[in-house]
Amino acid sequence: MNIEILFLGKTKEAYLQQGIEDFAKRLSQFNAIELVDIKVKKQSGAELQIRSYESSLLEKRIKSGSYRVVVDGRGRQLSSEGLAGFITKLENRAVKTLSFIIGGPVGLAEDQREKADTMLSLSQMTFTHDMARLILLEQLYRAFTIKAGTRYHK
Amino acid sequence: MNIEILFLGKTKEAYLQQGIEDFAKRLSQFNAIELVDIKVKKQSGAELQIRSYESSLLEKRIKSGSYRVVVDGRGRQLSSEGLAGFITKLENRAVKTLSFIIGGPVGLAEDQREKADTMLSLSQMTFTHDMARLILLEQLYRAFTIKAGTRYHK
Repeated sequence: MNIEILFLGKTKEAYLQQGIEDFAKRLSQFNAIELVDIKVKKQSGAELQIRSYESSLLEKRIKSGSYRVVVDGRGRQLSSEGLAGFITKLENRAVKTLSFIIGGPVGLAEDQREKADTMLSLSQMTFTHDMARLILLEQLYRAFTIKAGTRYHK
Repeated sequence: MNIEILFLGKTKEAYLQQGIEDFAKRLSQFNAIELVDIKVKKQSGAELQIRSYESSLLEKRIKSGSYRVVVDGRGRQLSSEGLAGFITKLENRAVKTLSFIIGGPVGLAEDQREKADTMLSLSQMTFTHDMARLILLEQLYRAFTIKAGTRYHK
């Protein structure tokens, strides 16, 4: 199963970008992983319009027919073991591509939530989208170490 | 109210350390904040012994009589707004020092949980202690922007 992670816009903080790339590299030892940085042109309109524009960019880039996980505070929380089990379940269902979607600074369009196969919440706390990227990457890496029974720090 | 954050051992990843310092600096515009990096000598004993050794180091450094928040997966989760309200409540109770404690790679000794005034869980997911440091700092910064009504990214 391929994993793609779709980001809207660049990660602003260089240190977070470094962490994201670090975990993506470590993760790639376990599973095919693609970070898709979708270029977003600066928009001047209302947030609702920006979200709709970003949603259309997402639709152009997302792998057709993929299983969609939208990272959103309204979603359900999983433990790290739960995330590992969730990935295994999708592998067993022969899902070809698992796509993770994280919104940009203005959040995601409502239609992205409707199209989601699963909404995943990382915490009750609100994170910047940049922090959410790093946390998601770290958790995916952790999930694969759990699946492989590899030692990884607590 | 002074805030001190007690870490056991250095942050291994340079990019996480950079993020921690970045948020500590931004946070210091709102509130007195001290990062206390407790030097831990490498121990060869069992995890239980290491925890006990680290706990004794903590007790030497922690501000006496401070309000203790232990960051631990068994604690209660707060939303970012909930954390802001929690801090305000302690300020109103005239707490002089609020101490946050995050364990090292082998976790915290049981007596630290017993001494905690509050146990705070960041997520159902398990993070490395280094990641937990960054997340805590970001959430404290967010809490103070919420309290101040300042704009901060979602």
